Amino acid sequence: MSDASAETAIRPTRAENFSEWYLEVIKAADLAESSSVRGCMVIKPWGYALWEHVQRVLDGMFKATGHVNAYFPLFIPLSLLEKEAAHVEGFAKECAVVTHHRLEARDGKLVPVGELEEPLIVRPTSETIIGESFARWVQSYRDLPLLINQWANVVRWEMRTRMFLRTAEFLWQEGHTAHATEPEAIDETMQMLGIYARFAEEWMALPVVQGEKTESERFPGAVRTYCIEAMMQDRKALQAGTSHFLGQNFAKASGIQFQDEKGTLTHAWTTSWGLSTRMIGAMIMTHGDDDGMVCPPRLAPQQVVIIPVIQKPEVREQVLAWCTALKRELEAQTYAGAPVRVHLDARDLQGAKKSWEWIKKGTPVRLEVGPRDIEKGAVFMGRRDRKPREKQSVPRAELVAGVGALLQEIQDALLERARTMRAAHTRVIDTKDEFYAYFTPPPTRRPNDPTPIHGGFALAHFAGDPAVEARIKEDLGVTVRCIPLEPGEPGTCAFTGQPSPKRVVWAKSY
Amino acid sequence: MSDASAETAIRPTRAENFSEWYLEVIKAADLAESSSVRGCMVIKPWGYALWEHVQRVLDGMFKATGHVNAYFPLFIPLSLLEKEAAHVEGFAKECAVVTHHRLEARDGKLVPVGELEEPLIVRPTSETIIGESFARWVQSYRDLPLLINQWANVVRWEMRTRMFLRTAEFLWQEGHTAHATEPEAIDETMQMLGIYARFAEEWMALPVVQGEKTESERFPGAVRTYCIEAMMQDRKALQAGTSHFLGQNFAKASGIQFQDEKGTLTHAWTTSWGLSTRMIGAMIMTHGDDDGMVCPPRLAPQQVVIIPVIQKPEVREQVLAWCTALKRELEAQTYAGAPVRVHLDARDLQGAKKSWEWIKKGTPVRLEVGPRDIEKGAVFMGRRDRKPREKQSVPRAELVAGVGALLQEIQDALLERARTMRAAHTRVIDTKDEFYAYFTPPPTRRPNDPTPIHGGFALAHFAGDPAVEARIKEDLGVTVRCIPLEPGEPGTCAFTGQPSPKRVVWAKSY
Repeated sequence: MSDASAETAIRPTRAENFSEWYLEVIKAADLAESSSVRGCMVIKPWGYALWEHVQRVLDGMFKATGHVNAYFPLFIPLSLLEKEAAHVEGFAKECAVVTHHRLEARDGKLVPVGELEEPLIVRPTSETIIGESFARWVQSYRDLPLLINQWANVVRWEMRTRMFLRTAEFLWQEGHTAHATEPEAIDETMQMLGIYARFAEEWMALPVVQGEKTESERFPGAVRTYCIEAMMQDRKALQAGTSHFLGQNFAKASGIQFQDEKGTLTHAWTTSWGLSTRMIGAMIMTHGDDDGMVCPPRLAPQQVVIIPVIQKPEVREQVLAWCTALKRELEAQTYAGAPVRVHLDARDLQGAKKSWEWIKKGTPVRLEVGPRDIEKGAVFMGRRDRKPREKQSVPRAELVAGVGALLQEIQDALLERARTMRAAHTRVIDTKDEFYAYFTPPPTRRPNDPTPIHGGFALAHFAGDPAVEARIKEDLGVTVRCIPLEPGEPGTCAFTGQPSPKRVVWAKSY
Repeated sequence: MSDASAETAIRPTRAENFSEWYLEVIKAADLAESSSVRGCMVIKPWGYALWEHVQRVLDGMFKATGHVNAYFPLFIPLSLLEKEAAHVEGFAKECAVVTHHRLEARDGKLVPVGELEEPLIVRPTSETIIGESFARWVQSYRDLPLLINQWANVVRWEMRTRMFLRTAEFLWQEGHTAHATEPEAIDETMQMLGIYARFAEEWMALPVVQGEKTESERFPGAVRTYCIEAMMQDRKALQAGTSHFLGQNFAKASGIQFQDEKGTLTHAWTTSWGLSTRMIGAMIMTHGDDDGMVCPPRLAPQQVVIIPVIQKPEVREQVLAWCTALKRELEAQTYAGAPVRVHLDARDLQGAKKSWEWIKKGTPVRLEVGPRDIEKGAVFMGRRDRKPREKQSVPRAELVAGVGALLQEIQDALLERARTMRAAHTRVIDTKDEFYAYFTPPPTRRPNDPTPIHGGFALAHFAGDPAVEARIKEDLGVTVRCIPLEPGEPGTCAFTGQPSPKRVVWAKSY
């Protein structure tokens, strides 16, 4: 994966220590940092801008399919959760509990006072609190379908946190819909899964497998949970979005009922679906390399950076004027439905230093411009999908006219590279022995070395016995990531010899 | 303000009971509702869409002035607040305190367990938690200015809540910036105040007074607090945005220091500025009338609604086809830099019923289309700034070509109306007696009637004595809303006879 002899901007490299590399990329690309609040991160401007583009694009997709946004309370009264807990086993219990509403200064210390009559939970997800509103909003079949989305922060008290992937607080969108019939709700569930898959592939350059979760990985209370699963460069799977068909379970718990056309009172059929800032972690681990972050052009905060190379102060003005004009020309071009995002880095720093900063941040296209380039009417262009020193001179007019195509070429290259990587580490496996061997890490050189990258996606037949799944999880830390939607041939379970309807995707996962 | 003999869609009317009217408009326009969580509201899709447009426009203004977005933790450790509390008197103490991180089921009840070593406060504002990051980010003068904005939810444990105006949780943006010099930080403070004022007038059609707060209304820890103040239709003032110059106070508390060009370690100069969902309350109380909400066209979720009037089923298809084509033509027009937002209300309901729904929601332009209109090639057009029944036939081509101008005409009319209203209820006052008379409500007819609308903005000279201000607040519930930025003549304090640099704005307020 990396050429150990070459110098790289990030140490350790992916091959040396993938999880350390991940944290170093976040630091080098200035994406985020940890805070003094246990398990909570600060999303820095470059990381947040990635999220803003995710929001913008997904929000457009949601609205194009008839959804509207709304906002529901951050807090859930304990009694409301109790009502749900009665219906749902496996209720998530690690959450932030608000018990007081006042701080008082006593001996120079602040002390919580004003105990609440009823504790409040900071929402870990909003099914209950939104269900309560839906019960009021839905009276007649005319009120359906109800297609609501919320952009919000949620809190889950995670014990082992990891930036972007698992933090106590994270940002996400949660869609909640109610329908008059079961088929409509199922259609919605699948439509949103499809939107996530399309977003992942077309915008994030992230190839995903769409599939259904087995019972053990199903959202508590859901009838069926669907997901998109992607392979990271350490060959682990990352669940990148989920869509739940909730049947009438939540409608019954929340009392979401309507009069149908015949006047009969019926419970609605509901769905929920979510995608979070975890996606930024997925982008890092899919596209990042040993020189830092690699932003997919369509979501890159800046798609092109212009770096004036000014060795003598007397040329400064001329070079900057030329670069400013170039910036305007590029910004007049469009890519993926929006003006090209161009940054002119006019800071008074050495050109090479600036260039490396933008490489580490993952900017798709870098343009170095010095007096000699200007003389030639050209720029010195570097692409983030190629090696840092693999740069070429491009005539200005050609670059401007072709910038959209260039960005799409990089976008396509990233998707293709990720597809190739995934294909190389996806294996059809038919025996338990091969399966166990596939997921057993090779020995490390020294006792404290990190576990070498190994395994991948195993496509193995599985008859569906939860006990078998639990055993494999215990033995190898491997789970069924999903039962793919794509049609497959029936066969024999690799573990029990029982008949299996199709191969499922097994992997270690985040 | 209202013609009591005419039938109106909202009862009570503004004149009858302004605060009840406010709640009824929120209900009739489907803007929001209360939730089962004390003091927390649900922002419904129509209300949230208004906020989305506020966000979109303001965010563009922030970015055009060099600001970037980031995201900081929801929780603030108690010890961090203690550090600030030591520096700041008047520290806000009503807030949500998280003390446990786990719920356990015991005898069918959920009980908070897992007490935190250190309680966490749900952010009431983020100066402390952002200051902590800034202290890490700022090392050298090259790192300045730091221009950050955050879109977030915040929580303040309000005892008396009112939808959009004062709720426990609300949505806002909070800007936080750090600068190398005092003049730069002051410029930033004033620039952001100016942006709020421009946004209020140009986008919300809300005339505002820009000014500085007196000491008693200053943000705790700020050197100077500036605000924009608007007059609602009950003649009370509403603070619609604030911009604080924080001097070096917060930089010292948080340790935000940098090496200047000479290598000297210096504390940065910081600012903060915020605007919240309160703005939606301001829109309701400024533009709403006795028929419901009136959305300023530039922020309206839908700017034009097309209402097919179908009396016979056999014309349905033809009318809908005509309306769909009209919708597309209108959407191809732009207004205020974006495609015109058009909704076709094809629901199978009576035309008049639909029409009234859109009136109550405050849609700027309604187009009724029936077979006879189609024959004439015209639409029957109603404007929300005119009476509901004051409609006119407009040729289709004329309407389409002029829709942008029409929307701006309505936008201008709303601003003009609000300006006229404010001018009519702004009085120059020179004596204490007149001042007290101005703010003393007229007697009510019956003992339990609501206080009649009275008073307004009093422009009176004030020498600045906090004791005088406190006395007036106690006597009348009137405060100095701001010391206007506009130049004024010096004079004599209406209350003490002391010299006063200029007249200030006094009013009752939200």
